[in-house]
Amino acid sequence: MEIKCKDKKVLLKAALGEINSDLAITNAKIVNMFNGNIDHGTVYVKNGFIAHIELNDEETIKADEVIDAKGMYLIPGLIDSHEHIESSMMVPRNFAKAVIPWGTTTVITDPHEIGNVWGVEGVKYMHDDADDLPMRQCIDIPSCVPAVPGLENAGADFLAKEIEELTKLPRVIGLAEVMDFLAVIHGEDRMMDILDVAERKGLYLQGHAPFLSGRMLSAYLCGGPNTCHESRDTNEAYEKYRNGMFLDMRDSSMCKNIPAVWDAVKDSRYLDHLCLCTDDRESEDILVHGHINDVVRIAIQNGMNPIDAIRSATYNTAREVGLKNLGAIAPGYVADMILLNDLEEMTPSVVFYGGQKVAENGKLCVEIKDHSFELERRNSVSIKPLTVDDFTIKAPIENGKIKANIMEFEDPINSLSDVASVELDVVDGKVVLNDPDLKFVAVVNRYQNNDNIAVHVVRGFGTTHGALASTVSHDSHNLTIVYDYAENALVAANELKRVGGGMCAVEDGKIIHTLELPVAGLLSLKPAEELAKDANLMKQANRQLGLTQLENPLLRIVTLALPVVPNAKMSDLGLVDVNNKKLIPLFD
Amino acid sequence: MEIKCKDKKVLLKAALGEINSDLAITNAKIVNMFNGNIDHGTVYVKNGFIAHIELNDEETIKADEVIDAKGMYLIPGLIDSHEHIESSMMVPRNFAKAVIPWGTTTVITDPHEIGNVWGVEGVKYMHDDADDLPMRQCIDIPSCVPAVPGLENAGADFLAKEIEELTKLPRVIGLAEVMDFLAVIHGEDRMMDILDVAERKGLYLQGHAPFLSGRMLSAYLCGGPNTCHESRDTNEAYEKYRNGMFLDMRDSSMCKNIPAVWDAVKDSRYLDHLCLCTDDRESEDILVHGHINDVVRIAIQNGMNPIDAIRSATYNTAREVGLKNLGAIAPGYVADMILLNDLEEMTPSVVFYGGQKVAENGKLCVEIKDHSFELERRNSVSIKPLTVDDFTIKAPIENGKIKANIMEFEDPINSLSDVASVELDVVDGKVVLNDPDLKFVAVVNRYQNNDNIAVHVVRGFGTTHGALASTVSHDSHNLTIVYDYAENALVAANELKRVGGGMCAVEDGKIIHTLELPVAGLLSLKPAEELAKDANLMKQANRQLGLTQLENPLLRIVTLALPVVPNAKMSDLGLVDVNNKKLIPLFD
Repeated sequence: MEIKCKDKKVLLKAALGEINSDLAITNAKIVNMFNGNIDHGTVYVKNGFIAHIELNDEETIKADEVIDAKGMYLIPGLIDSHEHIESSMMVPRNFAKAVIPWGTTTVITDPHEIGNVWGVEGVKYMHDDADDLPMRQCIDIPSCVPAVPGLENAGADFLAKEIEELTKLPRVIGLAEVMDFLAVIHGEDRMMDILDVAERKGLYLQGHAPFLSGRMLSAYLCGGPNTCHESRDTNEAYEKYRNGMFLDMRDSSMCKNIPAVWDAVKDSRYLDHLCLCTDDRESEDILVHGHINDVVRIAIQNGMNPIDAIRSATYNTAREVGLKNLGAIAPGYVADMILLNDLEEMTPSVVFYGGQKVAENGKLCVEIKDHSFELERRNSVSIKPLTVDDFTIKAPIENGKIKANIMEFEDPINSLSDVASVELDVVDGKVVLNDPDLKFVAVVNRYQNNDNIAVHVVRGFGTTHGALASTVSHDSHNLTIVYDYAENALVAANELKRVGGGMCAVEDGKIIHTLELPVAGLLSLKPAEELAKDANLMKQANRQLGLTQLENPLLRIVTLALPVVPNAKMSDLGLVDVNNKKLIPLFD
Repeated sequence: MEIKCKDKKVLLKAALGEINSDLAITNAKIVNMFNGNIDHGTVYVKNGFIAHIELNDEETIKADEVIDAKGMYLIPGLIDSHEHIESSMMVPRNFAKAVIPWGTTTVITDPHEIGNVWGVEGVKYMHDDADDLPMRQCIDIPSCVPAVPGLENAGADFLAKEIEELTKLPRVIGLAEVMDFLAVIHGEDRMMDILDVAERKGLYLQGHAPFLSGRMLSAYLCGGPNTCHESRDTNEAYEKYRNGMFLDMRDSSMCKNIPAVWDAVKDSRYLDHLCLCTDDRESEDILVHGHINDVVRIAIQNGMNPIDAIRSATYNTAREVGLKNLGAIAPGYVADMILLNDLEEMTPSVVFYGGQKVAENGKLCVEIKDHSFELERRNSVSIKPLTVDDFTIKAPIENGKIKANIMEFEDPINSLSDVASVELDVVDGKVVLNDPDLKFVAVVNRYQNNDNIAVHVVRGFGTTHGALASTVSHDSHNLTIVYDYAENALVAANELKRVGGGMCAVEDGKIIHTLELPVAGLLSLKPAEELAKDANLMKQANRQLGLTQLENPLLRIVTLALPVVPNAKMSDLGLVDVNNKKLIPLFD
């Protein structure tokens, strides 16, 4: 896909110097993505595109505005190869305000989270809110809504028809991370139809292939998706790279994969299949550390040549996702650029989007208009009136001990979890917890026409007491609650119904803090600074309930009900055996 | 564009090893285009696609056919990034027979020559004749028919409408070399409309930008085309590469550009914009030296790393032209592959096309069916009855000397030519030649409804006497004759009318040799071996007329009427000032 210039003839005239360019950036060290050199010269911009690069001395600068770069480096605007804006908990326009000053001019975003809540309408909302932004938010259509059909219920169900409808949105460029890799590998009809629509419409197919190897990996590649941001291990990354995958090296708020992936590819003769992504970054991380610029910085710190690292966040990514004239500074390319003093520090001095100065010294310098969408005011948490009974597990015996299959986290930090066999105490026909490491877990379907509530037991979650609840709960985003007593769970659930979703911590029947996320139960309408403060209070509340081992305790509950991550996860239908795609009953 | 697998589910099953693959190539040194490594292993193929690559030892090989590579290298099938099949003077099916044993499994061909003769029908003929071949002939739609509208008349005229019609052909992937660079640079409507159609249809835009530099080059790039095979000079190639062009390093029968281009890019940090092409290779060159494998070999001889050189003729090219799953050996990629003993020698032992063995030890091992098209039997040389008078220049004086603007070749080898001012003798109102270095030149329009004949004088062409005539005469392919006496020209012209086109040499009123090219006046129906013999007799005849300084004298006349090559060329309208796009009268 070419990013189209509105009036090519005017651009041609500016290139020839027959008319003035809009902007000339003089005296810049231009970082060349084609040969890796650094050239000293002037870049001319007209109508948002680069018209000409002059490396010779010129008597007159033919431009309406001239910016003297004073010898600073000029690099292409940064591109995030894969992310979910929803993970920032900000709406697209507020997300833009936070990331533009860091030099992110394009993101490839997968509105998978809101797609699971509001379906096609949710994806369109994310698209439309970004329509007039001074950055490019390209959309990959969520491929797996719900993530694992038949094993969970989300707010929507995307079949080929929904995918086809969404291809009409102008900024749609790909099919987003195809997480249901088993459906691909085994050629399931629903998935084959979705892949077929995407290929027919010329979309690129973004992959998601954690731990895939050998013939399974080959089958996934034969299925079509050929990118992956899910490599945690050097061998895994090496095998994927060798087999032709684009690797999106990830540094999210949770997953720090750069050391492992870089180790896998650092001796490659070619690095053009290497890209960078944030996947999921919280507002505070963005504010404090940065966005994709921070990922570039980390790659450099891990030993990557700065120009290679920049190329991985610009030119390579544009090739990966099929955006032809993006990701380099050359005639005919989109004039997204960054001026900075140091290629290793990666702190932008000036950010240009389509030739317009949009940020300077960390501050946005264009206005981003506020919007109002009806969807932003709609309560997405649709749950029947609840009682304490809803959060109580009834046992098939009256009193005594009973064997049970429960969910168990492998460690207090990682999201990997398994099934464990334990003995639970039963008193008066109800399960009571006999070990401080055990907690109840409930997943309450929060969508219309579905009252499913699954209640189970989890070991090693990390809280010591109280109830922790969240409507951010990948990927179906049902209301997930981890709790000691049903009474605490009920308080948390009712609070999140009231505010339209978010996160809530309850101790002794009292709310410690609620992080309100009224848009789809996922997003706040607050800007990054305010949201980060609020999120910090929420983290504090999480720690108060015992989640002290994670740097970011908010992220503990959000992947508890994610049945694409091995080996056992919860859904509104119960405990899911991820690898074998079946439900595991609590009692045999 | 993805090359589509007919039954993906079957491919998936083969990848998983649930069913047998069609073919396994075991014990191969697999050259990896992603990391540049060489891996020892087995490649599985199903339904024409690579299903799996196994690097571990296996107990059973799950395939119907097993070929032991005996430690030979396995590389992707070679891709020629730019060529005109017509330059081989063979029809597509005979061309295929000649190049497949050399490992060419894909060509990006521009049927520009036949397009200028038979228009849309000619392009469709080239496409259809290649329909069932054991190689992939991808078509770029000729962009410049005629090459320079208004300054020459060809057999057809391609506007946006014709381009749009041709986009419907299944193997069309691009818009072919946009030679009329001035039309691009100055945003002429006809050209802008053509570029717009191509971009809308998702075609890549192949460029042609000889000598373009500075702001002119920038404007050309802003216009859209971003590849070039026309770099003859290191500085020129360096500037194009730096500005983001894909460089197609060329080794044609005429132009040997690899040393200059390689010198320009050899210190680049990245070589992924470097491709290889043959552009125009004659049948004998193909037979004796090879095809794109020979270009790879020459690149290596010039100092290029063999794996980089192979990548430039496989993976890089597929990226340049937008063919997604071509150019590498990896799951999901098309199973075009070559087994060979030596990466520097580049002589294929076995060639696989879509997993089928199509050539072995230089011999084709599949049948290529003969076709018959009505167009192949149609005489394209439509010229009114001619007389000696048609080849005589009448002067505005009766006797004496007259100043004239004639065409002059810069040297006996190069195709560059200029305007020279000379004094010509006039006897009885007719120009007679007073210098052995002067010859008459006539360009006779050979298409229906046009009887244009332009007669002029040329210096430094190289023949000493006689008449040399050709209907191969880039790009309009009018009948071009260089001669001493009108009588000789008439004999040659009538002979080529009779046989339906080709080349003819006449001495003292007698035909020395005629190379018959009855298909469009451009192509023979003979296979390479026979054609090469015939062409050699024609070369001999050329030498007999004095063309002794060129290694290949056939190529002297064919670019005489090519008004996209500076600085002055002939057309059926007269002598053309190429750079200023105007006609130059013989007498002021």
